[in-house]
Amino acid sequence: MLPDLIAAASAGRPRAVGRLISLVENDAPELRELMALLAAGSGRARVVGLTGAPGVGKSTTVAALVTALRARDDRVAVLAVDPSSPFSGGALLGDRVRMQRHALDPGVFIRSMATRGHLGGLAVAASQAIRVLEAAGFGTIVVETVGVGQSEVEVAEQVDATVVLLAPGMGDGIQAAKAGVLEIGDLFVVNKSDRDGAHAVVRELRAMVALAERSAQDWRPPVLTASAVDGTGIPELLDAVDGFLAHAAGSGLLERRRRQRARREVESLVLARLRASLPARGRLGLDTLAAEVAAGRLDPYTAADRLLQVS
Amino acid sequence: MLPDLIAAASAGRPRAVGRLISLVENDAPELRELMALLAAGSGRARVVGLTGAPGVGKSTTVAALVTALRARDDRVAVLAVDPSSPFSGGALLGDRVRMQRHALDPGVFIRSMATRGHLGGLAVAASQAIRVLEAAGFGTIVVETVGVGQSEVEVAEQVDATVVLLAPGMGDGIQAAKAGVLEIGDLFVVNKSDRDGAHAVVRELRAMVALAERSAQDWRPPVLTASAVDGTGIPELLDAVDGFLAHAAGSGLLERRRRQRARREVESLVLARLRASLPARGRLGLDTLAAEVAAGRLDPYTAADRLLQVS
Repeated sequence: MLPDLIAAASAGRPRAVGRLISLVENDAPELRELMALLAAGSGRARVVGLTGAPGVGKSTTVAALVTALRARDDRVAVLAVDPSSPFSGGALLGDRVRMQRHALDPGVFIRSMATRGHLGGLAVAASQAIRVLEAAGFGTIVVETVGVGQSEVEVAEQVDATVVLLAPGMGDGIQAAKAGVLEIGDLFVVNKSDRDGAHAVVRELRAMVALAERSAQDWRPPVLTASAVDGTGIPELLDAVDGFLAHAAGSGLLERRRRQRARREVESLVLARLRASLPARGRLGLDTLAAEVAAGRLDPYTAADRLLQVS
Repeated sequence: MLPDLIAAASAGRPRAVGRLISLVENDAPELRELMALLAAGSGRARVVGLTGAPGVGKSTTVAALVTALRARDDRVAVLAVDPSSPFSGGALLGDRVRMQRHALDPGVFIRSMATRGHLGGLAVAASQAIRVLEAAGFGTIVVETVGVGQSEVEVAEQVDATVVLLAPGMGDGIQAAKAGVLEIGDLFVVNKSDRDGAHAVVRELRAMVALAERSAQDWRPPVLTASAVDGTGIPELLDAVDGFLAHAAGSGLLERRRRQRARREVESLVLARLRASLPARGRLGLDTLAAEVAAGRLDPYTAADRLLQVS
């Protein structure tokens, strides 16, 4: 049944792709077999992350990217991941109105992903969904996230290239986020470039990028401008992404990233299973030891020792 | 030396307290001994979390809370934790200007905490810092965090009572955050209550609180108003916190929370140590297995199996 579903997904049937991603979301028992079947096919698509604070125009930019990629005859999948709340799932990214023009195009697949139930965490779920989309033959996979918290950084680590979107007039939020944003962006785009203050944001970003320490062979992230609402600057962004990916493939950066990603994924799966084994571990078990710690009769380190002594 | 430092901290010397918290931040080797020495003294202070989006007036509210607690002759510690960026540390909470009036008061201790290096993660570091502050004899410990992402929820789990601060006119960010905020708040405060829209925020929050499912013996979080800039509503907030803590102590909720907290702390320490052991685990080791996964010759689940087979 799983091989049939994979075959249907590879043939471009969106419902089959959707059902496979649901298996990922739900951390379904079939996931293990699915990943074994898909292992050999990974690394075929270009996986581009797009992140930015609310209000910078992510949805519009994603829609413009899809239009530009379709004009180049590429099949595109969009995966919207919302790690900003453990509760609300994909709610913040629910605004798919601008994507409606692509709704009937079989070369475009759009999916919001909520992952609260996944044992391996959001990053593993995103990575597995990317594998599904690669197997389904999409040439480009755009992974959209909000903001730059720890979870966004983890999702950024699942992609080949990270585009950070900013806009003028967003206030302190963006200013404060820049330090973090600078470390995950391979490319920066100042959207709404016709607005007041756009040039100042570009200038400031370029200065920060120039100041950031990096070794000689490293990539210096370009700072582009766009007006996604009418598509201005989007073809240039795609070219810049390709330029980065060519650099990353040539310098070994892409390979290092993919190994690092696999490393984190394996680590997460191992730790999730070890965590599941903790309650029954040790002579006393986690709950009894925790009660002793709460009562002040034991310190947490000694409790941890007792759990680790028996393996 | 550690017992001397603890004695000095217990005697109210702020520099000794600061040095102990630095040991926590740096995950210092002495931490283990420190926690063993402090184990018996935990649970003595009331530990109040204060969270809210940037701009709602957290700093002002914390300053007003400190003033009100000092008027009641309580010794107060403020721990500002910023988990919103893995890079910027405590920068977002650097605005301690409003706290300057307390700077010379020996009954007040203020500290921002950056914890990027702590193996057990932010929640464990916060919990350990709270133990230090309890040992130092502070009657109330206010733990201030930004926002309501996953990390904030984890920090919220380290406290006895969580106060969620909101303000009118903050736009979509707060609206969107409410679903998450609702689940961690024991008390809600709408600050800047003299501004337009404050009543609407109060009304909307009350409706959401009333709708939230809970069992009969559960606490229904009150929605208070305040104007922290002139201290209006702050004594009422303190009374409400005491009301909640009395309820939580009587219903067993406080005990359950403290056990849950100890459980998570022990779990984090165990998992951190298991993670550190992964690279050398198994016949092939994590890096070799990860390279196989990246090359598509192995799936992540099988790689995880191989690491787990040898224990």
